Amino acid sequence: MPLQDYMKIVSVDDHVIEHPRVWTDRLPERYKGSGPQILETDKGHHVWKYEGQIFPYIGLNAVAGREPKDFGMEPVRYEDMIPGCYDPAARVADMDVDGTHAALCFPSFPGFGGGVFQRAKDKELALLCIQAWNDWHIDEWCAYAPDRLIPLGILPVWDPLLAAKEVERLAAKGCRTVSFPDSPVPLGHPGFTSDHWAPVWDACEATEMPVSLHFGSGGFVPGFPFTTRTGTVGRSAEAQVDDTPFAIAISLFATNLMWSTSEILFSGQLQKHPKLQFVLSEGGIGWIPYILERCDFTWDRHRWYQDIDKEAKPSDLFREHFWGCFIDDEHGLKNRHDIGVDRLLLEIDFPHSDSNWPNSRKRANEVLADVPDDEAHKICELNARKLLRFDA
Amino acid sequence: MPLQDYMKIVSVDDHVIEHPRVWTDRLPERYKGSGPQILETDKGHHVWKYEGQIFPYIGLNAVAGREPKDFGMEPVRYEDMIPGCYDPAARVADMDVDGTHAALCFPSFPGFGGGVFQRAKDKELALLCIQAWNDWHIDEWCAYAPDRLIPLGILPVWDPLLAAKEVERLAAKGCRTVSFPDSPVPLGHPGFTSDHWAPVWDACEATEMPVSLHFGSGGFVPGFPFTTRTGTVGRSAEAQVDDTPFAIAISLFATNLMWSTSEILFSGQLQKHPKLQFVLSEGGIGWIPYILERCDFTWDRHRWYQDIDKEAKPSDLFREHFWGCFIDDEHGLKNRHDIGVDRLLLEIDFPHSDSNWPNSRKRANEVLADVPDDEAHKICELNARKLLRFDA
Repeated sequence: MPLQDYMKIVSVDDHVIEHPRVWTDRLPERYKGSGPQILETDKGHHVWKYEGQIFPYIGLNAVAGREPKDFGMEPVRYEDMIPGCYDPAARVADMDVDGTHAALCFPSFPGFGGGVFQRAKDKELALLCIQAWNDWHIDEWCAYAPDRLIPLGILPVWDPLLAAKEVERLAAKGCRTVSFPDSPVPLGHPGFTSDHWAPVWDACEATEMPVSLHFGSGGFVPGFPFTTRTGTVGRSAEAQVDDTPFAIAISLFATNLMWSTSEILFSGQLQKHPKLQFVLSEGGIGWIPYILERCDFTWDRHRWYQDIDKEAKPSDLFREHFWGCFIDDEHGLKNRHDIGVDRLLLEIDFPHSDSNWPNSRKRANEVLADVPDDEAHKICELNARKLLRFDA
Repeated sequence: MPLQDYMKIVSVDDHVIEHPRVWTDRLPERYKGSGPQILETDKGHHVWKYEGQIFPYIGLNAVAGREPKDFGMEPVRYEDMIPGCYDPAARVADMDVDGTHAALCFPSFPGFGGGVFQRAKDKELALLCIQAWNDWHIDEWCAYAPDRLIPLGILPVWDPLLAAKEVERLAAKGCRTVSFPDSPVPLGHPGFTSDHWAPVWDACEATEMPVSLHFGSGGFVPGFPFTTRTGTVGRSAEAQVDDTPFAIAISLFATNLMWSTSEILFSGQLQKHPKLQFVLSEGGIGWIPYILERCDFTWDRHRWYQDIDKEAKPSDLFREHFWGCFIDDEHGLKNRHDIGVDRLLLEIDFPHSDSNWPNSRKRANEVLADVPDDEAHKICELNARKLLRFDA
């Protein structure tokens, strides 16, 4: 059946483009000149400048409303994007056109998980920049339409105690999830197996704050040529080399979240943090049954001689602690019962190239056509409301 | 239905442990002392020595016949392994016990794709070592039971013209497939997108030689901590760090072959080599429908502005050029028609820890229980015979 009229789409993955004054409006006087600001280049491009570095793509693939044949031309000025990218009133109107009721928006300039600030030199400034983004996002962007825009925050990941404090500050402001790097390792930090992150997870449990892991937020781009010819990780699209189409990386982004999922399932941390919830943002869902089967198989044969929980099966841990997210994933939906209908969430991904805007509801009707009403309602709305404590 | 008696299991992935005289028997006099040889350490361990380096694990996870609780203890002497690991007469007897008719065996000491020789300093010696392995494998190992053991060769990947010549030499000796690194990039070579490999692919097409990509054969171990904390790729199990269980990498090995698959599908090389066949050895199959759907989606939206074939859809190319392999993959079999029943191959993986020996046929009966006879026969025997031109 198509989506019934009473079902409202609550999307758990969209993107907001920061307007030019997010930081100049909010940083203390002494940092006004050194925080992120928009410059206009000789070519008439709008670019971000921060700590002496130029960041050329303000829109980060904000191509909504274009034909795929025109996707290659990145927006280089605010006027190249539809206003819903950066203006909340226009965004809500774009959501109305699209048939989307509510949206959870990730950052653009800071990176999906705030990686630009994680890599910054001046960490006092970086913390203020993170808090400025969070304040702008909650007090200005989401405040425009609190029943339509869901608050998300980013964290000072370089210091788990500071990050825990920011989780508490965000919770007090009504924030509903934090975006954490899909792996902290490319940012130079310990992985998910480490107790290093206990203060952050404690704070997230205490405040019922789900942790959204958006693919790419740790800065790692999947695919052999991307990782190794440059000799580095933590690079982005500019790491593309030679004749290697970037489509390869685009098609493989979910492998990042396969790595994160397995690492967390085998980490032992879920047993120490029984209320902790992870959201696999823009990860797709079609791979989940295979990876769970493979994790269980590995656990069955290899747990005896390794430092792995002997009692808790990975797939059982998954169904208590993870949420799968998809935009357009027919194989995943066909196999939804092997994942768990209560753990699936719909994404719109406005204004990126994976989005179906302005036909998102139409496309959701197609991919959910064979799904019974009660399940479709959970997937498009009720699961997200429950996870994010975002009431109708 | 369980496998019928007339269905013979032809496994496309097993492993052979080299006996101590493979190279000392075959290298020319001047290289006798510098080729790979077995030493006995003070602790009584058998180890390989080659180019001054000690390689401690002769058995490479050769644990067949043990309980999983004892998997942690690597065999350190030939006597710690069952003789079927290195003795072809014993192997055939082990296959009889297991209900397996024929086996395709990958190398152990050289690495699945000959990586030890690809990384060697003296390339003249390395080429002779590769040819010695190939000659031993075909003339001694497979010759013992030509209707039970299927010849496989490794290549001097560092030089595409030499590799092409070795493909031709192997074809003349009756070899049925070559093992090529799952990515040549961690070995310091161009990726699959490059025309660099054209001589190898030309030779494989001319000789009807399928290319087996065994996970891990390029030396890359998946999972964030493995890649980045060490700052290197091309490391193996010893790259395990801190408190990170190696089970994470074991559960994620298929992600290597997801990367290889997407890279080859978008490379344009399949259009230049229309008869080329790739085998995804030990890659599992449950992930294939998701990755194909995702590659098609990416192709649909992003081919216009990238150097990508505008006509050939990735999933169509997959079904003409790829073969999926599995040991034990219930999700994949349930979704076998989304992959293609004509492109699926069964693996036994003797003597490694993923193997079900001596119950492989029993386990195949279980996983194929819901598969009709004609499809099960293709999957366990006929597809492999067709691909490898290995007649009954």
